[in-house]
Amino acid sequence: MIKACIVSIGNELLNGHTTDTNCPYICGRLLSIGIPVVGVYTVGDDIKQIVRSLKLAAEDADIVIVTGGLGPTDDDITRQAFAELLGVKLQVKPALLKDIRKYFADRGLTMPEKNTIQACVPKGASALDNPFGTAPGIFAKMKRKLFFSMPGVPVEMKEMLEKSVLPRLTRKDGTGFTIVKKIRCFGAGESALAEKLGNLLERGRNPLINITVSSGVITLHVVASARTKKQAEQMAKKTVNRLRLLLGNLIFGVDDQTLPEVVGHWLMQHRKTITVAESCTGGLLTKLITDVPGASDYFTHGWITYSNQSKTELLGVPKKLIEKHGAVSEQVASAMAIAARQKAKSDYAIAITGIAGPAGGSKQKPVGLVYISVCDGDNCQTKKCLFSYTRDLIRTRAALTALNMLRLWSSRTRR
Amino acid sequence: MIKACIVSIGNELLNGHTTDTNCPYICGRLLSIGIPVVGVYTVGDDIKQIVRSLKLAAEDADIVIVTGGLGPTDDDITRQAFAELLGVKLQVKPALLKDIRKYFADRGLTMPEKNTIQACVPKGASALDNPFGTAPGIFAKMKRKLFFSMPGVPVEMKEMLEKSVLPRLTRKDGTGFTIVKKIRCFGAGESALAEKLGNLLERGRNPLINITVSSGVITLHVVASARTKKQAEQMAKKTVNRLRLLLGNLIFGVDDQTLPEVVGHWLMQHRKTITVAESCTGGLLTKLITDVPGASDYFTHGWITYSNQSKTELLGVPKKLIEKHGAVSEQVASAMAIAARQKAKSDYAIAITGIAGPAGGSKQKPVGLVYISVCDGDNCQTKKCLFSYTRDLIRTRAALTALNMLRLWSSRTRR
Repeated sequence: MIKACIVSIGNELLNGHTTDTNCPYICGRLLSIGIPVVGVYTVGDDIKQIVRSLKLAAEDADIVIVTGGLGPTDDDITRQAFAELLGVKLQVKPALLKDIRKYFADRGLTMPEKNTIQACVPKGASALDNPFGTAPGIFAKMKRKLFFSMPGVPVEMKEMLEKSVLPRLTRKDGTGFTIVKKIRCFGAGESALAEKLGNLLERGRNPLINITVSSGVITLHVVASARTKKQAEQMAKKTVNRLRLLLGNLIFGVDDQTLPEVVGHWLMQHRKTITVAESCTGGLLTKLITDVPGASDYFTHGWITYSNQSKTELLGVPKKLIEKHGAVSEQVASAMAIAARQKAKSDYAIAITGIAGPAGGSKQKPVGLVYISVCDGDNCQTKKCLFSYTRDLIRTRAALTALNMLRLWSSRTRR
Repeated sequence: MIKACIVSIGNELLNGHTTDTNCPYICGRLLSIGIPVVGVYTVGDDIKQIVRSLKLAAEDADIVIVTGGLGPTDDDITRQAFAELLGVKLQVKPALLKDIRKYFADRGLTMPEKNTIQACVPKGASALDNPFGTAPGIFAKMKRKLFFSMPGVPVEMKEMLEKSVLPRLTRKDGTGFTIVKKIRCFGAGESALAEKLGNLLERGRNPLINITVSSGVITLHVVASARTKKQAEQMAKKTVNRLRLLLGNLIFGVDDQTLPEVVGHWLMQHRKTITVAESCTGGLLTKLITDVPGASDYFTHGWITYSNQSKTELLGVPKKLIEKHGAVSEQVASAMAIAARQKAKSDYAIAITGIAGPAGGSKQKPVGLVYISVCDGDNCQTKKCLFSYTRDLIRTRAALTALNMLRLWSSRTRR
């Protein structure tokens, strides 16, 4: 089976500021065409380290994908490292230089001299087109191993991967095919979910099931390998069906579906609308809803009522109710939802009120306490939650839990 | 100089779903105590690969930091890999088992049997306390190299790093000290900024300056190395002062300051308040503002007016104005800001209206066109922007540009 290895280059990856989002993207895309990534070497802008990693990666795998170090500044030395690996010199390609000048001219700018280096390619290697930026990629072969070097800027890398790299990596060996199906769950912890799955999580198993967790969203990756694509697909499907039986409505979606997408899709399909009144999440829930293209079909407006007074002024939540129960209470959450729905004339409303911290907590109402209400014209359901850790995680969990409540609500309505 | 290397473990890091945010965090924290990370090995849940990486990492560096593979499920095999590396067996530690049972009991749960493995440690190694989860870490020594193994769950890893790992890594060699200062900029591209800095970006330089870019925020990392901490600090300070002269008000902050923090801090200091009316960013700007703890001092409420009708109904933007100029126009943006400020009785208001895409663009008004207005009681400034790439990036750039406009506005007011 053909395997790939990634070399990720840049001091910024080792000094703590930049999170490498390119690697997971590349891994996912390669696996989707049946090529597993077996390792990643992350190194700084040091020519010796880069050359060493390129050699190690070529020992591990048939395909070496390199990101970073193709920029115009002095710390970008991937081109030079490739020239050293291949034992050749760098050459200016006049056609590339022309493209780069044009890129700046199109934006009404003159090319800074620094960008000339981006028109250089090691002798014998070829350039990969970069429609989104000034740094062309590099494609080189050495001892039957293929090297693809791409910019580190994610949008540029993605475009180059899709247009210039993946098309060259059609499977050549015929020894097998890998299919990955993702099942996305919300509403249970990792251990609890693992207990439900039992021996389905065993390592030697095919399909193999990997678990990842992010902000309470648990993703099960079903990786099926077989001699043909059809066999692998059938194996994956069979396991997915077992997971559906075992996990029921903990499953909210497949592949890369997000909770906002799933909920939005349901609203769109059923021609329903939603509004939002947010306190502690301060816009995050509305942001998640409008992350989905076409959200204007089911979302028209919402309120961020962060202060107590604004809950009364904007939504008409009785001042006395807030005084009696506190702004963080079941009563105020449901009053916010009901009022928002009536004002927006929408089918559903979600309201969130809580204490995101780090300050503002008390013994009775600790940081992490959040009330979430979902209502339609007939009913209002309010959930009391206690989330842990940081302000950011508390807010994210609250917003996702709210969407999940609406999802479960809608799945009941569906029947 | 003492160096560190990271081994990051987990199939989820190689199958495309999980982004490794632990590495940049660890790198940043280690560098802050003068220990540079020289490389990262990312491998799957494969015992041979893990052991090989641990050996390679121990060749590269004095300290090996390991994350991942300490969970309760069958794919978590870091403990076994350590036992193999050290040539010893795993032992159940009764005290750890008691702690894990207590962790579940505190939450009203019974410990799933699967979690017993988390009470195991290789013979001769010791456990590292995990106050946030059930997986204790591992600390082992081999041939004068130190190995620290931590869970992959970020909150658990961070707590363990701060409480159990960093305190053991006081500098021992006395050969030098490294200081990192970060300068954060907004409002210019990377090449343009690099041109301004000229030879300050040269590689051999000390302090070294690394550049990273994220959603238009450019961070300059000034890395100064010297024999003493004081010398390193002085060198860093001198370079930071040069950067301030060269970049002026492109600089919005230092270290880990964000635009919302800087703007929020200014509002708090000057006892000013702000409100927001968002269309295409759909809550993102308000979310950024309320990311900052204590934002309730300067933010009380805001409106998400996603539809045209809601701009009229909630804010009172004249229907005719929208019909004449379109919702995405300078006129509507400024009308939204002025109306929001009056309604909220705040000192400032920001309004954003634009086309985030992917659909909805036209030749006259393409995807990425965004109007941003900032106003106080006397003036209203509106900026026409054309952002590129994806819906997500367009929205993020729009929200950050809005905050930056307010920052520049306030810096003028300050004088």
